[in-house]
Amino acid sequence: MNKTQITIKDIGRALNISPSTVSRALKNHPDISQQTKDSVNKYAKDFHYKPNTLALSLRMSKNNTIGVIVPELVHYFFSSILSGIEQVANQQNFNVIICQSSENYENEVRNTKALISTRVSGVLACLSKHTTNYDHFQEIIDSEIPLVFFDRICIGIHTDRVVVDDYSGAFSAVEYLIQTGCKRIAFYSSPIHLEISKNRKNGYLDALRKYNIPIDESLIYVCDTREEAIIITPEILDRPDRPDGFFAINDHCASGIMYAVKLAKLRIPQDISIFGFSDGELAKACDPMLSTVEQHGFEMGKNAATLLLAKINGENQGQFTNKIVKTNLIIRGTTR
Amino acid sequence: MNKTQITIKDIGRALNISPSTVSRALKNHPDISQQTKDSVNKYAKDFHYKPNTLALSLRMSKNNTIGVIVPELVHYFFSSILSGIEQVANQQNFNVIICQSSENYENEVRNTKALISTRVSGVLACLSKHTTNYDHFQEIIDSEIPLVFFDRICIGIHTDRVVVDDYSGAFSAVEYLIQTGCKRIAFYSSPIHLEISKNRKNGYLDALRKYNIPIDESLIYVCDTREEAIIITPEILDRPDRPDGFFAINDHCASGIMYAVKLAKLRIPQDISIFGFSDGELAKACDPMLSTVEQHGFEMGKNAATLLLAKINGENQGQFTNKIVKTNLIIRGTTR
Repeated sequence: MNKTQITIKDIGRALNISPSTVSRALKNHPDISQQTKDSVNKYAKDFHYKPNTLALSLRMSKNNTIGVIVPELVHYFFSSILSGIEQVANQQNFNVIICQSSENYENEVRNTKALISTRVSGVLACLSKHTTNYDHFQEIIDSEIPLVFFDRICIGIHTDRVVVDDYSGAFSAVEYLIQTGCKRIAFYSSPIHLEISKNRKNGYLDALRKYNIPIDESLIYVCDTREEAIIITPEILDRPDRPDGFFAINDHCASGIMYAVKLAKLRIPQDISIFGFSDGELAKACDPMLSTVEQHGFEMGKNAATLLLAKINGENQGQFTNKIVKTNLIIRGTTR
Repeated sequence: MNKTQITIKDIGRALNISPSTVSRALKNHPDISQQTKDSVNKYAKDFHYKPNTLALSLRMSKNNTIGVIVPELVHYFFSSILSGIEQVANQQNFNVIICQSSENYENEVRNTKALISTRVSGVLACLSKHTTNYDHFQEIIDSEIPLVFFDRICIGIHTDRVVVDDYSGAFSAVEYLIQTGCKRIAFYSSPIHLEISKNRKNGYLDALRKYNIPIDESLIYVCDTREEAIIITPEILDRPDRPDGFFAINDHCASGIMYAVKLAKLRIPQDISIFGFSDGELAKACDPMLSTVEQHGFEMGKNAATLLLAKINGENQGQFTNKIVKTNLIIRGTTR
């Protein structure tokens, strides 16, 4: 037994690089230069580095549990993702424990620490919409716990990822609105630093471009909840050049638009068409029922859990998969 | 250090009583006879029993995490309970991890084992609707992990409990239907072995009795999802003596009734009144918006977490609180 067993952190300090760089160098990660890999490997060999014995012993006593971090459980999309995750996990005799960030960065940090300390075998995560610093996720990787992002992903951290085909979903929805006669289409988005917002906005813009509809930035709003939509929509409907179509980033937001449109005594879909994104019980409870982009949360959950379990079982080390789940349009009563 | 340290199980075997009886006797629980307490205490003293050192050492290394077991995250009621739990827990610097039983007994058993093995400091649980055996919850207590039930509780296990005032909520809703002219009121219930079903059914029956409306068992159905309601309601609306009012055990079920009533070209509320139970975004997305019993999930979550944290902090040992959260009626467009 070597009492002075060195750690990844020791190597990092000695070579003046971060522990995560050391970790990735030891795993032969493509992002790390050959020079760095060589010096890390030499140092590790010279000082008899062995993989973190604490992490290893924890791994040995692992409890076959997957931790999931989701922004908001109240959304049907996330609960259907969880059902997909649970189906795959339970088949392989893994438990699933869930943490909710409530769209709050501090909660998300707390969640990652809790999952590390409860010695989960792997983590599936979807970013809170207010997260712009990702160190807490790097900590999961540095703790040698496999991590897979789903839906709202982090570009800066190298992991497997599963995303909805946001661009195509948005493009098709907006194209449908145009093809059914809408000429001025408003877009209600989540905060624009999120990848899903960027991709859906690009889909929206490209559909307008394809049909030579001028882009009007004054029709693009950051608004992604029912409550916000109820507040901001009346003013937009009062504009002399009011939109004749709305594309909302989720169904909750779309249901708020519907509320405001009815309140303004405008007809859905004759005066105003509305397209959502998600599809769950809420979309069907709306009257008329909501046209929306079905994003197959259950499939996404199954894919994410499958990728994570492969990593937990030691497969595909050093490779990262980017899985895209296709969407399709569900046409109901809120569009012509 | 006594190598042959005896355990609660040893005492139970020696005295031919269950470990949980021993555990409760040692805690001076009111349900245990004085005679049993005396013999347990004498045996424990004679054989130098000390509280489970493993559980104790785990407790020492506790990770300030509360585990929550819920039936279905997709329901607004449960997600609002979780928000209440998280608010109280986070204030006291506790993390919250959530397990979903998906209304499945086997999953619930798996969840309890996972929470015990991840060394949570305490457990909050709401029964799956198919659970009729409660040994897995007794196991939590035998592992000396504080347990509090909320909403769907277990009568047989002695814990703190937080319930909605189901009886009064149901009574008031049905009374409102009667006062606004309904004479034949159908009741859609969850499985009747659940306490919430029994209490809401009693509220329904007592309201009918108060107004001398004959009880017709053929108007009581086990049906608690939107999908089931869509399937069974058309037939009920076809009856020559069809109901003129529906009281549904949750809003999802009520939204399914609304769908079927509209399909049958009957008017809401002129021909048929509908009352739900829960209140969330779904109720507001319905058109007309759903009259429902608001059951204050957030308050329930706060109460449950407060009771649990008190037990975790060593307060109120041997005492069990039965907290009842009041409901109130939200009258909207589906009632006259």
